[in-house]
Amino acid sequence: MPVNLPEIESMALYPVAGVKLGWAEGHIKKANRKDVLVVEICEGASVAGVFTLNRFCAAPVTLCRKHLSSGDGIRALVVNTGCANAGTGEQGMQDALATCQAVAELMAIEPSAVLPFSTGVILENLPMERLLSALPAAVNNLAETNWKEAAYAIMTTDVAPKAISQQLTIENSTVTVTGISKGAGMIHPNMATMLGYLATDAGIEQSLLNEITKEIADLSFNCISVDGDTSTNDSFIIIASGQADVHFTSRQQPGFAELYQALLANAQVLAQAIVRDGEGATKFMSVTIQGAKTVAEAKAVGFAIGKSPLVKTAFFASDPNLGRILAAIGYAARECESLNDLDTNLIDLYLGDVLVADKGGLAKSYTESDGQSVMDHQEIDMTVQLNRGDAEVTIWTCDFSYDYVRINADYRT
Amino acid sequence: MPVNLPEIESMALYPVAGVKLGWAEGHIKKANRKDVLVVEICEGASVAGVFTLNRFCAAPVTLCRKHLSSGDGIRALVVNTGCANAGTGEQGMQDALATCQAVAELMAIEPSAVLPFSTGVILENLPMERLLSALPAAVNNLAETNWKEAAYAIMTTDVAPKAISQQLTIENSTVTVTGISKGAGMIHPNMATMLGYLATDAGIEQSLLNEITKEIADLSFNCISVDGDTSTNDSFIIIASGQADVHFTSRQQPGFAELYQALLANAQVLAQAIVRDGEGATKFMSVTIQGAKTVAEAKAVGFAIGKSPLVKTAFFASDPNLGRILAAIGYAARECESLNDLDTNLIDLYLGDVLVADKGGLAKSYTESDGQSVMDHQEIDMTVQLNRGDAEVTIWTCDFSYDYVRINADYRT
Repeated sequence: MPVNLPEIESMALYPVAGVKLGWAEGHIKKANRKDVLVVEICEGASVAGVFTLNRFCAAPVTLCRKHLSSGDGIRALVVNTGCANAGTGEQGMQDALATCQAVAELMAIEPSAVLPFSTGVILENLPMERLLSALPAAVNNLAETNWKEAAYAIMTTDVAPKAISQQLTIENSTVTVTGISKGAGMIHPNMATMLGYLATDAGIEQSLLNEITKEIADLSFNCISVDGDTSTNDSFIIIASGQADVHFTSRQQPGFAELYQALLANAQVLAQAIVRDGEGATKFMSVTIQGAKTVAEAKAVGFAIGKSPLVKTAFFASDPNLGRILAAIGYAARECESLNDLDTNLIDLYLGDVLVADKGGLAKSYTESDGQSVMDHQEIDMTVQLNRGDAEVTIWTCDFSYDYVRINADYRT
Repeated sequence: MPVNLPEIESMALYPVAGVKLGWAEGHIKKANRKDVLVVEICEGASVAGVFTLNRFCAAPVTLCRKHLSSGDGIRALVVNTGCANAGTGEQGMQDALATCQAVAELMAIEPSAVLPFSTGVILENLPMERLLSALPAAVNNLAETNWKEAAYAIMTTDVAPKAISQQLTIENSTVTVTGISKGAGMIHPNMATMLGYLATDAGIEQSLLNEITKEIADLSFNCISVDGDTSTNDSFIIIASGQADVHFTSRQQPGFAELYQALLANAQVLAQAIVRDGEGATKFMSVTIQGAKTVAEAKAVGFAIGKSPLVKTAFFASDPNLGRILAAIGYAARECESLNDLDTNLIDLYLGDVLVADKGGLAKSYTESDGQSVMDHQEIDMTVQLNRGDAEVTIWTCDFSYDYVRINADYRT
């Protein structure tokens, strides 16, 4: 079961003025489940996105990039689960285009105003007949109140839906931030097999939104790992509908810092939700790397730990076999060359508040029972102090259990 | 159980003149098992080594590098299992030195002529009293015929011992090549949680041996992955005792190519043996990457596939969910920047002889049952043709099973 994942059934998911959501059961892969989502976005909204760096990126990702850079306003999103439309060559691009065209016709907008998203099995073609015949139903039930249904409609191997919502007062106006995400496996930046959508009714000028979408992704969805696999389809979108009374064109405007913080905090909750629902996860770990020379160094060390099968199986067993953490730190240079001169004699490792390694060696004060008492928790923090600079990053990861193997050995069946 | 691992009980392990092996039960971690090995090497032999690139390398690795570079002849090796002497700071170095001194006294040689090796749990100090009191017994039973016992004495989580031996005729002389290795988890170059020792009675001049040891490691022990974790203690040693009638000072000498080929082939068997005995392995996969621009590119793609938990669990399930292979190829640029311009539309993927992906998309001729028939085998070859250059590499890896999790959740208990 997910690790302390916020339960969306009892959550207030505030509508975002200017953003309507509609779903359908398209039988893309399985019958009787919501698997198609259409989002309608009001005219004049700003939309920005960040996508996977996987070279085998899916056709819809390529098309999203193209449509976003065209400069025309984005008016709709269309999402299907059950098939990733990746590794599908020219046919995949035709299918993604046809999907946009169908949505555009139903909504009387341009095809280039539609962003398509797919998630599911790679190396299979989209079942276009089923997908296209599901679209009218999704468009017919578009409503601002459908966030919960939308969270269900984008799930794949997720055990539970993921959503977050917040209202805050900025310059005497009420501003809403609401978002959903999905993902549980093939999760590693940049980015994860994840889709994330965050919407606010505040107005944010397009170039400013582009800037902060990248920053927020780097501090949220690009700080998580479940299994170290970077997917072909990852996409994170922020929509600023501009229907509230506050509009931002610069970071210096009063109230912007508050909105930024709310967007970031909610993106982090959605990102962490993916780790909490990580395939087979029984523990949630926050790994903070301090004293790196650069953020890239800190991330490389954090992810070396966060994706090591040996570290993750030890946490599954609640076994403080913490030397495996040192080993992972020691090979982080594989993904960040500047770590080749890492001096391990400067490194301290804390598990919770317990000093485990002091200047690269076993701390004299450390006892196995101190380590054990931290390992027994479901939520575990660890801190690595590299003592070579000022950069700091926190990444989030989960343990590696029998169920990870079961889920991924069974995924297609 | 290991996948087609050669059984050493029935294997002829030819003695190598000038190399004697002695073992003891030191109770380093568990009682009643061989866990200490001493190797005596005749005067005048050449010895070369290749070691882990992990920055948290163990004290014995640091000391091996120092002793090898001192230029004095190496006359002995000492190996313990059960404790890695890594993450042990200054105490670890003192312990490694004291071990060399004790062996040196027993054998009347210089401490700098001894190479120390440790393997086992990280972040624990060596039990020096038990280790030192085991050494006399090991020295007392030194014999050229002890290769089989030596293979047992270096095991940790290995299910079975690993050895190989060959005799060949070079320039009318009989030359022997015999070796042992150990390793099953924390296996990923450079290098793996492995120890490998290969000895020949041929003579090979020191600088030539240094050169070929690196080359042979790159084509054998640096081409395997079990779990993507690079250990703190990996070491691969070649000993050329010079007791046979052939002596080489240059690659151009008649017969050298044969000896080189024999050393390489035997190193590859020992390296593959580690994968065949990979923790929880049920399948052995050979991944060949062709048409890369450089060997580094080919290795990055091979290891992205070979260490992907999603690929490895699909192979465990014999499920031809082959899109996961494309996804792994697509993110290989994480470990090799030159792959950032990889054109996925040029890539072909073969599973055995079956064309799966053709120019980056699902091959028209591919059927699920063709893929399934290859997946059902225990030994599986796959070939990725990148079509962007001439470099080619084969790496070896295993699948990811429930037993991997069980073994690594239980390792210390």
